[in-house]
Amino acid sequence: MKMNMIIGQSGGPTSVINSSLAGAIEYAINSKVIGNVYGMINGIEGLLEDNIICLSDMFSQMPQEIHRLKHSPAMFLGSCRYKLSHTEEEYDRLFEILNKYHIGYFVYIGGNDSMDTVEKLSRYTKEKNIDIKIVGIPKTIDNDLVGIDHSPGFGSAAKYIATCVREVAYDTSIYSIKSVHIIEAMGRNAGWLTAASVLARAEYMPAPHLIYLPEVPFSVEQFVCDVKKKLEEYNSVIVVVSEGIRDKNGEYISANSATSADQFGHARLSGAAAYLKTVVEEQIGCKVRALEPSVLQRSAGHIISQTDVNEAFNLGTVAARAAEEGKTGVFATLTRTSNKPYTVQYGIEDVKVVANQEKTVPRDFINEEGNDVTDKMITYLRPLIRGVAQTPFRNGLPDYIDIRHLDVRKQKYRN
Amino acid sequence: MKMNMIIGQSGGPTSVINSSLAGAIEYAINSKVIGNVYGMINGIEGLLEDNIICLSDMFSQMPQEIHRLKHSPAMFLGSCRYKLSHTEEEYDRLFEILNKYHIGYFVYIGGNDSMDTVEKLSRYTKEKNIDIKIVGIPKTIDNDLVGIDHSPGFGSAAKYIATCVREVAYDTSIYSIKSVHIIEAMGRNAGWLTAASVLARAEYMPAPHLIYLPEVPFSVEQFVCDVKKKLEEYNSVIVVVSEGIRDKNGEYISANSATSADQFGHARLSGAAAYLKTVVEEQIGCKVRALEPSVLQRSAGHIISQTDVNEAFNLGTVAARAAEEGKTGVFATLTRTSNKPYTVQYGIEDVKVVANQEKTVPRDFINEEGNDVTDKMITYLRPLIRGVAQTPFRNGLPDYIDIRHLDVRKQKYRN
Repeated sequence: MKMNMIIGQSGGPTSVINSSLAGAIEYAINSKVIGNVYGMINGIEGLLEDNIICLSDMFSQMPQEIHRLKHSPAMFLGSCRYKLSHTEEEYDRLFEILNKYHIGYFVYIGGNDSMDTVEKLSRYTKEKNIDIKIVGIPKTIDNDLVGIDHSPGFGSAAKYIATCVREVAYDTSIYSIKSVHIIEAMGRNAGWLTAASVLARAEYMPAPHLIYLPEVPFSVEQFVCDVKKKLEEYNSVIVVVSEGIRDKNGEYISANSATSADQFGHARLSGAAAYLKTVVEEQIGCKVRALEPSVLQRSAGHIISQTDVNEAFNLGTVAARAAEEGKTGVFATLTRTSNKPYTVQYGIEDVKVVANQEKTVPRDFINEEGNDVTDKMITYLRPLIRGVAQTPFRNGLPDYIDIRHLDVRKQKYRN
Repeated sequence: MKMNMIIGQSGGPTSVINSSLAGAIEYAINSKVIGNVYGMINGIEGLLEDNIICLSDMFSQMPQEIHRLKHSPAMFLGSCRYKLSHTEEEYDRLFEILNKYHIGYFVYIGGNDSMDTVEKLSRYTKEKNIDIKIVGIPKTIDNDLVGIDHSPGFGSAAKYIATCVREVAYDTSIYSIKSVHIIEAMGRNAGWLTAASVLARAEYMPAPHLIYLPEVPFSVEQFVCDVKKKLEEYNSVIVVVSEGIRDKNGEYISANSATSADQFGHARLSGAAAYLKTVVEEQIGCKVRALEPSVLQRSAGHIISQTDVNEAFNLGTVAARAAEEGKTGVFATLTRTSNKPYTVQYGIEDVKVVANQEKTVPRDFINEEGNDVTDKMITYLRPLIRGVAQTPFRNGLPDYIDIRHLDVRKQKYRN
């Protein structure tokens, strides 16, 4: 009897995490080795509750729905922030469910916390001689995963931020008065997404004028000096800051710094731009606005990078094939082999490489003053946002995939 | 000798105000009657300072640049919020400049304040027998202009808001916990743009669950009841509020209500969503987020409505032709002649109709409870966001038109 595959998604969403899901589903439903393809609703947490849907039923006869899934943001299978307790009792429950569905292949899409889950589960299955192959697919808009040139999801978020910054710069260009706009980008400890705003620049468009990453200690005094200097040269100054900028003592600049922490102990941030707005008001006194694109950075499926979509899809394929071929405790990864033309090579890697690690921005990707990025960063970023994706539209709006199955209390919509 | 045309833009930007400019320029440079086409930088204010560029030189041999202008947000000519003092001295200065450039046709693109300028200037030229035709082209994302079925600029802002709401709804769908997201839309006294969020709904997507317009007095108590009720039915509740919602005494709900006023006496608003976030935190206690797309509503050129782009362009053409034909004190307008198929008829109308008026949402476009819109609103809105615009892209980003000429201190970039 063929063994079945189960797929889950975990952590925060990206605009292309469903592209990876689509890649894995397409590979698995066409595989002669893999039986049915199931999805766990809300990750490991849903798995423990036997909250399972049959993806083969949903997608086998619907290639156009695979295309729609590939171009739909957020997470078709829902997410969880559940951390496994790794007790025998919990593992028993988990493998009881997996056994019930005859699972031989377990694919988990997520960030470094999720890759930790893959690592622990694969170690357990090896120890217990359980024949389930556990494979991870990385994702994060933060681009802070090690063992991969760049994370799927990052390119689309980067494209969104760069687009926003360019459009805000156009918006602010219209009045001949002094103004400052401060845009806050996501990225707790890694400044990759903040840095991506640099792509908004063109020969006729110097915005963003200042970029502050969390990798360099932030000085409010220096910030005020920097802004004043730019205001001498430009009417309208656009500043992009990471949500995670900290002073030299490691204290968050955000107004509500570290008021709470999530289950993994990460500080929940908000308000770096809002706080700096008050600083500019008080110490410079010109017109100033703070903008926080917030969750749209990770869910703006209407402006995703085709490069990112394709890579995320391909990594889904690579992971499903690795599981089919008997690999376990690995994740699908990609290596950049050339910038001109931009090419990547796909492969797999031991999941220990990526689990619980964090890739921050190297110092030489940031200028000496710590208020801009260098050409090394620009060279790294440029190819990742390329390509206008074929997001389906209907009646003028992006026509994303039906997600009614996620609302568990709406039983009428359940598969 | 042929008389020349001068064009200006004024008020807040929209994503398609440059489409109207493109339409007017294209018509005028192809006209056998009109001489050169000039642009005033920063509207009337720039005109008084003789800050003029020659649009004929810039665009005559560059049809592809007309296309780029048509698809670039913000204001190619810059804006002003300058209110004419209407003193003889000021008029003398104004007509001295117009005379210097042999202006016979004066086209002004803006909202109802700008149409007031058109009205006053055309009255003055008639009184003084000055042979300059003064014609207006309407624009506003607020859709609050009378004398026109809908304002150019509104359809694109509506498409942006509906897209954002749909994407936030997808983003929030992933966790099986209770949450509330409050999105604040622009529109001081008119709720059209807030209402447009309704288009995010699909058969599989009930968001936005609640919509509050400024036309109906807002009750915080009722809002809390409404949200609680929706939370019984849905995990994730999406609320869209206008920046201008007021209580029954006319007081703004926003935290920083009416702290300042602009030159026209309009209260400057911010923070309705931020305030309601604290209300939900205190009185309901679930996860809650406030989102303020802010200026992106009016400048997101990457997701404009093709219908809106075309209509804005056509109104530019209609205005330039009206001026050429000797009309003055009029504005270009459109009437909807059918919904299925959607058709409009272009024409001109006395500018008195639109100047200083405000079109708010009729009561029967809003449901009885005042927390949603009716089918009449949906029928009205639907055609306006249709069509994926042909915004040019380069290196993964929208490739908007060069606006270096707007920075007056950058003389090296001046034409």
